[in-house]
Amino acid sequence: MQNPHNYASMEGFVRVAVLGASGFTGGELIRLLHGHPGLEVGYLGGAGSVGQTLAEAHPHLAQLPEAGEPIQAMEPTAIAASAELVFSALPNGSSAGLLPAIVEGGARAIDLAGDFRLPAEDYPIWYGFEHPAPSVLDLAVYGLPELFGKEIADAQLVANPGCYATATILGCAPILAAGLAEPGPIRVDGKTGMSGAGRVATETTSFASTEDAIRPYRFPAHQHTPEMERGIARATGHEVPVLFVPHLVPAVRGVVTTCYLSLASGTTTESLTDCLVDAYLDRPFVRVVAAGAMVDAKRTRGSNVLELQAVADPRTRTAVVIGAIDNLVKGAAGQAIQNANLMLGLPEATGLPLAGVWP
Amino acid sequence: MQNPHNYASMEGFVRVAVLGASGFTGGELIRLLHGHPGLEVGYLGGAGSVGQTLAEAHPHLAQLPEAGEPIQAMEPTAIAASAELVFSALPNGSSAGLLPAIVEGGARAIDLAGDFRLPAEDYPIWYGFEHPAPSVLDLAVYGLPELFGKEIADAQLVANPGCYATATILGCAPILAAGLAEPGPIRVDGKTGMSGAGRVATETTSFASTEDAIRPYRFPAHQHTPEMERGIARATGHEVPVLFVPHLVPAVRGVVTTCYLSLASGTTTESLTDCLVDAYLDRPFVRVVAAGAMVDAKRTRGSNVLELQAVADPRTRTAVVIGAIDNLVKGAAGQAIQNANLMLGLPEATGLPLAGVWP
Amino acid sequence: MQNPHNYASMEGFVRVAVLGASGFTGGELIRLLHGHPGLEVGYLGGAGSVGQTLAEAHPHLAQLPEAGEPIQAMEPTAIAASAELVFSALPNGSSAGLLPAIVEGGARAIDLAGDFRLPAEDYPIWYGFEHPAPSVLDLAVYGLPELFGKEIADAQLVANPGCYATATILGCAPILAAGLAEPGPIRVDGKTGMSGAGRVATETTSFASTEDAIRPYRFPAHQHTPEMERGIARATGHEVPVLFVPHLVPAVRGVVTTCYLSLASGTTTESLTDCLVDAYLDRPFVRVVAAGAMVDAKRTRGSNVLELQAVADPRTRTAVVIGAIDNLVKGAAGQAIQNANLMLGLPEATGLPLAGVWP
Amino acid sequence: MQNPHNYASMEGFVRVAVLGASGFTGGELIRLLHGHPGLEVGYLGGAGSVGQTLAEAHPHLAQLPEAGEPIQAMEPTAIAASAELVFSALPNGSSAGLLPAIVEGGARAIDLAGDFRLPAEDYPIWYGFEHPAPSVLDLAVYGLPELFGKEIADAQLVANPGCYATATILGCAPILAAGLAEPGPIRVDGKTGMSGAGRVATETTSFASTEDAIRPYRFPAHQHTPEMERGIARATGHEVPVLFVPHLVPAVRGVVTTCYLSLASGTTTESLTDCLVDAYLDRPFVRVVAAGAMVDAKRTRGSNVLELQAVADPRTRTAVVIGAIDNLVKGAAGQAIQNANLMLGLPEATGLPLAGVWP
Repeated sequence: MQNPHNYASMEGFVRVAVLGASGFTGGELIRLLHGHPGLEVGYLGGAGSVGQTLAEAHPHLAQLPEAGEPIQAMEPTAIAASAELVFSALPNGSSAGLLPAIVEGGARAIDLAGDFRLPAEDYPIWYGFEHPAPSVLDLAVYGLPELFGKEIADAQLVANPGCYATATILGCAPILAAGLAEPGPIRVDGKTGMSGAGRVATETTSFASTEDAIRPYRFPAHQHTPEMERGIARATGHEVPVLFVPHLVPAVRGVVTTCYLSLASGTTTESLTDCLVDAYLDRPFVRVVAAGAMVDAKRTRGSNVLELQAVADPRTRTAVVIGAIDNLVKGAAGQAIQNANLMLGLPEATGLPLAGVWP
Repeated sequence: MQNPHNYASMEGFVRVAVLGASGFTGGELIRLLHGHPGLEVGYLGGAGSVGQTLAEAHPHLAQLPEAGEPIQAMEPTAIAASAELVFSALPNGSSAGLLPAIVEGGARAIDLAGDFRLPAEDYPIWYGFEHPAPSVLDLAVYGLPELFGKEIADAQLVANPGCYATATILGCAPILAAGLAEPGPIRVDGKTGMSGAGRVATETTSFASTEDAIRPYRFPAHQHTPEMERGIARATGHEVPVLFVPHLVPAVRGVVTTCYLSLASGTTTESLTDCLVDAYLDRPFVRVVAAGAMVDAKRTRGSNVLELQAVADPRTRTAVVIGAIDNLVKGAAGQAIQNANLMLGLPEATGLPLAGVWP
Repeated sequence: MQNPHNYASMEGFVRVAVLGASGFTGGELIRLLHGHPGLEVGYLGGAGSVGQTLAEAHPHLAQLPEAGEPIQAMEPTAIAASAELVFSALPNGSSAGLLPAIVEGGARAIDLAGDFRLPAEDYPIWYGFEHPAPSVLDLAVYGLPELFGKEIADAQLVANPGCYATATILGCAPILAAGLAEPGPIRVDGKTGMSGAGRVATETTSFASTEDAIRPYRFPAHQHTPEMERGIARATGHEVPVLFVPHLVPAVRGVVTTCYLSLASGTTTESLTDCLVDAYLDRPFVRVVAAGAMVDAKRTRGSNVLELQAVADPRTRTAVVIGAIDNLVKGAAGQAIQNANLMLGLPEATGLPLAGVWP
Repeated sequence: MQNPHNYASMEGFVRVAVLGASGFTGGELIRLLHGHPGLEVGYLGGAGSVGQTLAEAHPHLAQLPEAGEPIQAMEPTAIAASAELVFSALPNGSSAGLLPAIVEGGARAIDLAGDFRLPAEDYPIWYGFEHPAPSVLDLAVYGLPELFGKEIADAQLVANPGCYATATILGCAPILAAGLAEPGPIRVDGKTGMSGAGRVATETTSFASTEDAIRPYRFPAHQHTPEMERGIARATGHEVPVLFVPHLVPAVRGVVTTCYLSLASGTTTESLTDCLVDAYLDRPFVRVVAAGAMVDAKRTRGSNVLELQAVADPRTRTAVVIGAIDNLVKGAAGQAIQNANLMLGLPEATGLPLAGVWP
């Protein structure tokens, strides 16, 4: 499959599809696309929400011009006919069966689930299913724009990274690549708001049972673990095992990853900070925070910004590397649009918020 | 003072000043102005924050191009030289002394505090100070764009309404004007998130003492009371007394006003709803929610949207009129920009978010 | 059915049953009963949770001695055999069919749902079902201990009041009874935390969709409306129509009712306050807060306390009467135990927390 | 100073003093003491709050019999005369100067600050002050009842542990002592609610700036670091360096510590779990949660319970040990009363809540 697309001298809007339109990430994609000067929504696809209008599925979008558009059943031919670029915000396990037909029909696609992030053999282990389209899987490019921008530009299928993996890989990769930490096991302690659990209601995600909750969950088997290992290996050449322990905290948006690496001899807080600053110089969304200053996920809310910080602790021979993002933006919908910008030859920040909604 | 301005055929950006830049409302103005295609920030003014950069005062804005700009002491001549339009987001009592000199120097201004909303004789009663510039006060136009757009367009000084008053007046005025409710006393029960209390820390606004708090406060003496009465009188010709009982609830943004009016004979829920629909037909930010459907302040977060709903209860001869907004946007910074758009001859929605940041 | 019970000179513990043990209110009953010197849990009943142990249903109770007790299917004969007093914390509509057999079997019972609070003819209108046991319904005493203590002491079946109704009736009744407000329509604006919605998960009660939410709901048809009218009529002799507009706010526990009554001529804030002070002199759980001081539902969390406040607003001829409670304690489980104390001849505060868990 | 006290055959109440009565921890001590069958408050001491009554300082305690008691200036002789046992809930740095005189006057004392937890030479480094009373400091026993109960029973001065240190040491010590983890560096990732920051208001602890915040802070210099090292050394004989990275999350109460230790060869999740179960068999407040089941700080709210969990991850050679408590109870006031019980010869759980206030 050749990539015939060249939007660098684009006229007018590129029409896109949003699959999984009624979920949290789908809604966020539509909110962000509304502010994008080069993309317009041409197709809304869903499963359980078919027949609802956008305004019914997302009353917070009811004032948008497209509020009356219906959410449609997801028919690959119709999707490919309506859109040059497809964003799939379906749950894990749903896009693996759907996107191959769309991609083979000629559209380009960005999958926001985990269905194209790992090698085929890892799916039974970490996701519990056999991947149905290993050959399409092989085409997928891992969409971390700050690290793999060139491959993304030419990709027909992009696997948009997980929220935790985004913050972890972007924080740790430059430091490992520079040899400032030893390529040994990394312990990643994650904290996330509740929106990462998706829109479906369960007793443990209700407000009453979540206010004041602080809960480790699904460790050490969280499916972002191999994604972190693979992303770090790709970016640095080092195969390091990752232990990932995520925690739910009573926020809605926001992910913070606190990574514990083995400090290389001679590494200082200053050399860690300099390394991150150099790695992301001129990248619009990455902000390196000096050691001692405050990092806070809250500041990134609604924006595509990543805050990074690194500190050396020689007493325990540890490099602490911290990343903070809005899981629905830099950890999902915003990063997907950043990838789309690269795929279309646009500046990567086109149409994406640089300012958080604070307080 | 004649108004010499005519931006209808504007070329390039209009330079604006933001006074009170380090507060919550100041920060929100800067966030929204960043996305505005016709306005650019030319001056940041403050008091206690003088000398800080924008990024220091507001780390959530640190990725904006203007992040390195300093917050300056507020000198009227310098402000008027740097900006054609001045947004003042200073606390109540601070702009009354400052804006007159700026306005007399030829700039146009929008005051987001309460300093130009009432007649001079009301200030000692409701705000506890003698107004220092009654003649300038007489020039001020009350800036509710949906009701007073024509006067706003020509105004040199606009008094941007209070958050509670915005939701209350926009909800009640059409219904009173149409005779669907009797012009008797209105009881307004308000609920607000904590950002309305401003950025200054007090023990009662700390997270620990506010989670799970539900607290009536400052009633019946809240200063939005006469503003509601005056706004309703101006829009409807009816002088009705208002009782306003505000409550703090553990949210950050969001204001809901639940207004209890005396139902006129023959009024039904349908006639109330139709009245609101007709009043705000084609107004981009007002959404009338049918009786029985959900109104929720959360949906408006980060957007300039107002949700309205009305229900007749013949059993108790009551018309219930509900309004919901983001207090920092439609209740402050967003409405100020909406006013600026009108003052500059731009479409009123220019540069303002229609979509809430949800969840 | 005669009441043979006389526990005034009680030796040892009275065995009680808790039906609906796995819900929020059931859990709170068990927590409070654990600290009670005269009651012990002899039976845990449930529906969907049958077979779970108490610790499985409520991990926060896992350190209690009874943590290993199973939740049992609710068989009236077995319940009556295991317990002298039955607390039913089943959902609305479930106890009406179950408690009659238990009561007829000789046990005394307290129903925490709405199934025994209204006259039979009101059930189709407000609850949507035909009451299955009108003759038992006629025996039920409305369990507001501060107003109807004498009848409660002798009752075999007590209808424990709703949370909103508790705060409203206890606040308004003395003022109406004293003639300080006119017996005309009362508008009750309620605010509640999310625990009132119960433990079952729905999309609208998830943390992600509830943080920062402020939402009016189910008005003017909320089923506490006729309960308020009936309770006020019983306590004061005045038949006044009530309009009740409840609102969800992002708290877990806490109910505040803000009631707007027609001020009688000559009534002052002082006379209102004095009236409440006199009405509840020496009652352990009622705290009258002076006008101008803060009322806050948060303070009552975990305790059986009710805060009351009243203010006269002659400008609008309104008496504002405010009540604040923990909906799961004074609004449910705590009040039920207070009723049990009266039924058993114990001091009404026995075993009930006077101190809130704050912050 | 000999310890003349012997309360084992206590008649009546032991009178205690609470210093720092107006703070969060002071209020929690008073709440818990109210439910204690053997202790009664004989003295309330404060600094800025002197002259307030208890009800003024803590309206949530306004229904307690002692609500009218005044908070008094802290005069050592008066305190020693009024109380046999002194709880000091003063801020770090305040009790070091006050308690020595009280202890030398014959009273026994429990300090809830950090002033008696470290060797004298560590104070300049970790707390920034020179310890004023090194000889009294030498007398202090570190008050972790589950590990050092015997010394506590005889102590005249107990240093009540920090919240983070409590969860960390109780989780890690048995595992290190059993050789299931290597005695190498431990990385402790802490999460805490906002009540740990105390009652004093700052901009960063306001509700508006804290909702949705997830923030690492004060690392690697947090003063609980040496306390953890020292506590582990005392309990296990192993001097292991600790890296402690605490994070603020938007909860009020609750601390979770996630500790990363080097897994010893052959250690399994099962052996870790068994080790913890064995270590705390029959201890009323420690609950070991099986791997895979949920740990949640919310469940412990208001109670003196500690939840522990441990998991082996052979892939990264890591033992993950998790602890969860209510920082104001097991992490402060509750543990202090547990220590008092031991000092007075009472069962350690006397008067302490086993059930959390949930939801």
